Amino acid sequence: MKLDAELIAQFDRDGYLFFPGHFSPEETARLVDAVPELYERREDYNVREKGKDAVRTNFAAHMYSEPFAKLARHPRMIEPAQELLGEQLYMHQFKINGKMAFEGDVWQWHQDYGTWLNDDMMPTERAMNIAIFLDDVSEHNGPLMFIPGSHKKGVLDARHDLTTTSYPLWTVDNHLIRQLVQRAGGKNGGIVSPKGPAGSMILFHSCLVHASGSNLSPFNRVAVYLSLCAVSNHIRRHKRPEYIAHRDFTPITCLPDDCLLKDYPVDLPWKNGVPATALQTSMNEIEPERKAA
Amino acid sequence: MKLDAELIAQFDRDGYLFFPGHFSPEETARLVDAVPELYERREDYNVREKGKDAVRTNFAAHMYSEPFAKLARHPRMIEPAQELLGEQLYMHQFKINGKMAFEGDVWQWHQDYGTWLNDDMMPTERAMNIAIFLDDVSEHNGPLMFIPGSHKKGVLDARHDLTTTSYPLWTVDNHLIRQLVQRAGGKNGGIVSPKGPAGSMILFHSCLVHASGSNLSPFNRVAVYLSLCAVSNHIRRHKRPEYIAHRDFTPITCLPDDCLLKDYPVDLPWKNGVPATALQTSMNEIEPERKAA
Repeated sequence: MKLDAELIAQFDRDGYLFFPGHFSPEETARLVDAVPELYERREDYNVREKGKDAVRTNFAAHMYSEPFAKLARHPRMIEPAQELLGEQLYMHQFKINGKMAFEGDVWQWHQDYGTWLNDDMMPTERAMNIAIFLDDVSEHNGPLMFIPGSHKKGVLDARHDLTTTSYPLWTVDNHLIRQLVQRAGGKNGGIVSPKGPAGSMILFHSCLVHASGSNLSPFNRVAVYLSLCAVSNHIRRHKRPEYIAHRDFTPITCLPDDCLLKDYPVDLPWKNGVPATALQTSMNEIEPERKAA
Repeated sequence: MKLDAELIAQFDRDGYLFFPGHFSPEETARLVDAVPELYERREDYNVREKGKDAVRTNFAAHMYSEPFAKLARHPRMIEPAQELLGEQLYMHQFKINGKMAFEGDVWQWHQDYGTWLNDDMMPTERAMNIAIFLDDVSEHNGPLMFIPGSHKKGVLDARHDLTTTSYPLWTVDNHLIRQLVQRAGGKNGGIVSPKGPAGSMILFHSCLVHASGSNLSPFNRVAVYLSLCAVSNHIRRHKRPEYIAHRDFTPITCLPDDCLLKDYPVDLPWKNGVPATALQTSMNEIEPERKAA
């Protein structure tokens, strides 16, 4: 899959690209069917909504679930991200976000790179987010909201919000959001919400400011979020557990385009559980030897 | 203003009617401009969002604010409601709901009549809600969500939710919401959100199931909600303060259609404060003498 000049220019201007129905219903079903068993697990990598049993986010499924391990190597996703960043990529973070029917809570306004810089010491913003819808997304089940062009502002001042939801997040202040939305068109396009069927894909810049509302509808809005980082831009600190911020900076090798529907061997290193080392964290910067590895 | 047969049939089927731009920008401005001063007041009738200073709902402004006192007598609103209920109406409840930028919290799925029955002993559902947008309403600032046709189910089982938000509400269980949305078309029309400019009006049935999400956008979504009750159907209990559930069952007399823009004398009985009697509450049913008054 190759992006044309128009799409590349659009990404540069808006900070995101939307591909409705990028994966077929058959391909999407392989992923959707694997989610309930993963969400049932009582493991640290399942973060539940504040005061509720519903899963807010599941981390690192590509390390222990075959369909998601194949998705993490899918050329229809990796190749355009690689093209936009002009370098080989490794998997920095892999999430299946719930936003479950009735229970799904908000995600406050934030830039993902803000957290990767502040927590993980990722040197630059040379990283890319990909969202793949596992459910149909409508105006009623808490769609993503983007502020087009907000990635151009680089890293914005952020505040570590530890209380609003069950998951700590570096969030952007309201007065900045107001300015950014105004600059992007105010009520005419200052906020956009890509909506479409399950299997749709969004590529978005690691500095694009985004949020999402609560889901009061009876329709789940499960989505996979992959954060791909340029290998040379790998993180320099392991402040967070490895299931949140990965430590293997090996470039991703793609599988064939039909990998979700056919059998291909994939490595599942955490199939029998997350190793104890993955839970060890440190505030120290990684030593130069390790950086060069 | 007279509803034609088609609109009457539509109301019967869907449980609501939407009139975009029903009041002009000039008329709407008279109301909008009066809100900040009302919201600033430190009075019981201003209910603030949980843990925040933003106003969630202001009660009874028609008793102490001239523009809202005139709105409460506006023929463009009272006449269609009167036509649908076939009887003279009194004002049961009058709210200006904030749903303020960044701060506005959810309203859970509920029927208004559920609360009026359980708390106020309103005998039947012969009452009508009217919403008037004081801000533009888009998909991003927490619009109302209706389940079309849900009013046909009459009074649904409800649970008194005292914790989710700062305002107690009789809410409908998730399994019932799921059934009602499915019955109304599921993902194809099972939930609708009327959106439009400030000045738009919605008439909706007191049993229509509705909710609204949080407002993460930088745009307020202030709206006036009037609950008009057939005079013969007046409440039978004063369990709640009078600023929430009114006790004067006198039929509303309309002002002329230009009343928001011109001077007309209106009574403002609470101009100098809410009387102590309005705060007195009782669990007793009103005596028959009082009923007949």
